[in-house]
Amino acid sequence: MEIDLNCDAGESYGVYRLGLDEDALPLVSSVNVACGFHASDPVTMRRTVCLAKRHGVSVGAHPSYPDRVGFGRRVLEATPEEVADDVVYQVGALLGFCRAEGVPLCHVKPHGALYNVAASQPALANAIALAVKSIDPRLVLVCLAGSAMVAAAARAGLPHVEEAFADRAYAPDGKLVSRRVAGAVIHEPRLVADRVARMVTERRVAAIDGTLVPIAAQTVCVHGDTPGAVEVIRAIRARLAEVGAAVRGLDPGRPGP
Amino acid sequence: MEIDLNCDAGESYGVYRLGLDEDALPLVSSVNVACGFHASDPVTMRRTVCLAKRHGVSVGAHPSYPDRVGFGRRVLEATPEEVADDVVYQVGALLGFCRAEGVPLCHVKPHGALYNVAASQPALANAIALAVKSIDPRLVLVCLAGSAMVAAAARAGLPHVEEAFADRAYAPDGKLVSRRVAGAVIHEPRLVADRVARMVTERRVAAIDGTLVPIAAQTVCVHGDTPGAVEVIRAIRARLAEVGAAVRGLDPGRPGP
Amino acid sequence: MEIDLNCDAGESYGVYRLGLDEDALPLVSSVNVACGFHASDPVTMRRTVCLAKRHGVSVGAHPSYPDRVGFGRRVLEATPEEVADDVVYQVGALLGFCRAEGVPLCHVKPHGALYNVAASQPALANAIALAVKSIDPRLVLVCLAGSAMVAAAARAGLPHVEEAFADRAYAPDGKLVSRRVAGAVIHEPRLVADRVARMVTERRVAAIDGTLVPIAAQTVCVHGDTPGAVEVIRAIRARLAEVGAAVRGLDPGRPGP
Amino acid sequence: MEIDLNCDAGESYGVYRLGLDEDALPLVSSVNVACGFHASDPVTMRRTVCLAKRHGVSVGAHPSYPDRVGFGRRVLEATPEEVADDVVYQVGALLGFCRAEGVPLCHVKPHGALYNVAASQPALANAIALAVKSIDPRLVLVCLAGSAMVAAAARAGLPHVEEAFADRAYAPDGKLVSRRVAGAVIHEPRLVADRVARMVTERRVAAIDGTLVPIAAQTVCVHGDTPGAVEVIRAIRARLAEVGAAVRGLDPGRPGP
Repeated sequence: MEIDLNCDAGESYGVYRLGLDEDALPLVSSVNVACGFHASDPVTMRRTVCLAKRHGVSVGAHPSYPDRVGFGRRVLEATPEEVADDVVYQVGALLGFCRAEGVPLCHVKPHGALYNVAASQPALANAIALAVKSIDPRLVLVCLAGSAMVAAAARAGLPHVEEAFADRAYAPDGKLVSRRVAGAVIHEPRLVADRVARMVTERRVAAIDGTLVPIAAQTVCVHGDTPGAVEVIRAIRARLAEVGAAVRGLDPGRPGP
Repeated sequence: MEIDLNCDAGESYGVYRLGLDEDALPLVSSVNVACGFHASDPVTMRRTVCLAKRHGVSVGAHPSYPDRVGFGRRVLEATPEEVADDVVYQVGALLGFCRAEGVPLCHVKPHGALYNVAASQPALANAIALAVKSIDPRLVLVCLAGSAMVAAAARAGLPHVEEAFADRAYAPDGKLVSRRVAGAVIHEPRLVADRVARMVTERRVAAIDGTLVPIAAQTVCVHGDTPGAVEVIRAIRARLAEVGAAVRGLDPGRPGP
Repeated sequence: MEIDLNCDAGESYGVYRLGLDEDALPLVSSVNVACGFHASDPVTMRRTVCLAKRHGVSVGAHPSYPDRVGFGRRVLEATPEEVADDVVYQVGALLGFCRAEGVPLCHVKPHGALYNVAASQPALANAIALAVKSIDPRLVLVCLAGSAMVAAAARAGLPHVEEAFADRAYAPDGKLVSRRVAGAVIHEPRLVADRVARMVTERRVAAIDGTLVPIAAQTVCVHGDTPGAVEVIRAIRARLAEVGAAVRGLDPGRPGP
Repeated sequence: MEIDLNCDAGESYGVYRLGLDEDALPLVSSVNVACGFHASDPVTMRRTVCLAKRHGVSVGAHPSYPDRVGFGRRVLEATPEEVADDVVYQVGALLGFCRAEGVPLCHVKPHGALYNVAASQPALANAIALAVKSIDPRLVLVCLAGSAMVAAAARAGLPHVEEAFADRAYAPDGKLVSRRVAGAVIHEPRLVADRVARMVTERRVAAIDGTLVPIAAQTVCVHGDTPGAVEVIRAIRARLAEVGAAVRGLDPGRPGP
């Protein structure tokens, strides 16, 4: 039994600081590094890759729509071709820093609104999967479990993993409950830890109505941007250790599910 | 006898068109592709790499200070560390498109104000040379002939070529005459072609005062942004053919001078 | 009988040139000046306001979604509050140049995707109308004829005009035919001129199926970005002169329809 | 006896938070509001103007070189004309929010590297003074005491004030000691407060070598970006109250010194 824990990193920008990378990175196995379109800048990218290298964490790219002021959280009516080129640009830029620091680039996980749109629109998901594959066919695409991205990666023959969210409530149909719904985000560390452990040991999660729904996740997304969030990661790791599940990062070339 | 002819390319941006890439690319052996900081965008970069691929032209990166509105022509008081990270970001981004299109990335030539500052400031030149080497030690750095960049590339053990300018007047000390001086830019195609041919055959150029000064250039910069400029390139190629000089692009791994 | 002819202007950016402002401005009565979010920059804005001043053309702001690489043509999922603040920022910036040059700021016309969304979404149209009014209640909002923008401006008590398009085909229900449909754009100058004349004299336009539909437009949008487009404006002006219709710009404080 | 206390505000950007505006604004009499070139965005500008309005603080613009990633701290080789247009754009944008919120725009203070360059280069200082005057001749230009900016504002006939720095050491010639020198920044609240009180009561400041140098300041710059900085402002206000000096904001139309 093993699982990858991924969190976003390198979201600072110029003089602005965001996230607790110093605290969170030693606790996860993979990081999604912002590439300058929704957050980060070249100096921050270098610093983030160095930090990941120091802690032996797998490095992935976190490409976004070009919307820094909106932090990539707003849908932009870009064509699949435009998105593909935006992805190649951003992944390439991070690849530059990975080569400069002698660190392998392991995975790509679309950020924010791009992640959400790619999860439901096959044309966009295909464009992203093919763009990633064109850069390096061993890169692992991180996909919302059960989404259009999984199908697109499979179609492209691209290694991929399905992702679950540690602190988000699930609907009985296995989909994420919207953040606007009360109870959509779970804050209690012990509860979150139990849910992650069950995802790993039973491959199931308790939906918001109490029913158990199947979930096949090879990676679980955690947050590292608040002191409370770091506490949650510690609780998850402790619980995973109790149930005998190993935490392991995403490696390039690793076969997809 | 052989020489590389390089020109800038991919300087369009969004709906804006700049340069005559379609006309100029078939006539040169290397292109310096803008990487989004002074010009270009992901869609334009893809298009430019595809065009270079179609014509068998060597592809290089043309990184700049981050100054799109000033087209990278204004000096910015950035530290060598900031410049190094800006270079890694931009070269990496272009590397993404080169991999996506199966085209080798051959060289790096700093753009505009960055080129000028790097030619005279050893600290900045060193930072650029080391940044380029860290991405790929076979990349060729294009350096102003006789400048601090040449010394920096040599110190870094990075392949490099010295560059002359086809249509610029030279001072008796071998330096470029400032564009503000009358006669600094030569427009007559036949005259430009003769000068380039002499650079290749005699390794000398007639300075603005008529004296012949030595110049050791493995690459000559030409322009492709006006119909007249394209005529100049044709004249150069015809003259080089007459004197038996081959035009050949920059290849990665090729030993520096 | 009078009509305003408006065209977009000031869409150059840095070294990039777009549009034939020098040719088109003397022929129209109002210009919509780009404000830096989809096109233009401070130097271009100054130059455009000066050009409009020289030709006695009414100056208006042309605010956009923040999307320079996409030229403001892509819908962005911004909230009405974000759009309102983006509009205040851009209109204010142009107001700065109008005050610097002693030129009145007369109107505001949303650009591209923002114009289209505002035409159909009352919440966004309201936010724009109130934002414009908060800067100066005498500013005229240019609205797609018959759209949600007209209703929003009326609700806000903001002066406004309804806009028709000189070279676009109309559906029998008075809406614009999508550009993707064959025949959606009319290029023949004489035909375009006749249509505009009829809009002014009969307040009707021939729809794509031949039926005559009523249209109440106080301003007609023309283009100034190609030599052919400038020819069209000349034809329109000649035809308007024949039918005795005056071309007059939008003035602040002028009562809406 | 009266003095203005000014601090920078509105330096957040998108999701990024910077500065303690909520704590600092109630303690100062004027704020310099970032205008989007080194920091801030339209939503942040609106929020900052509203906060200043609530606390009755004078609002001024804080224009910068266009360099968000460098926070406007890096010198850019822009021409005086480019700087003038950048200033008009930014001041105009803030003017939009001031009008929208019914708050007078009182002053302009160049930010960061632009402030430093304008303090020593007459051509740039002149361009800024004339640009500000062209928008509104009652705007007050905030100038480094004794610098080229003071002379430029006087030449332009523009209201202006001279500025001292509460926590910075002065050289015997009345100039600021470089931040790179040990002791250049004074942190002890009581000491800073005493220095500001002496500036107001004696119009002198103790230089770093102990000599007393004359200083004519109508405004004193304080910081509001750290908890310690807010403590310093409180100490200054208490000390000013003890010596009977009133704290009063900059009003438009107020005659310069």
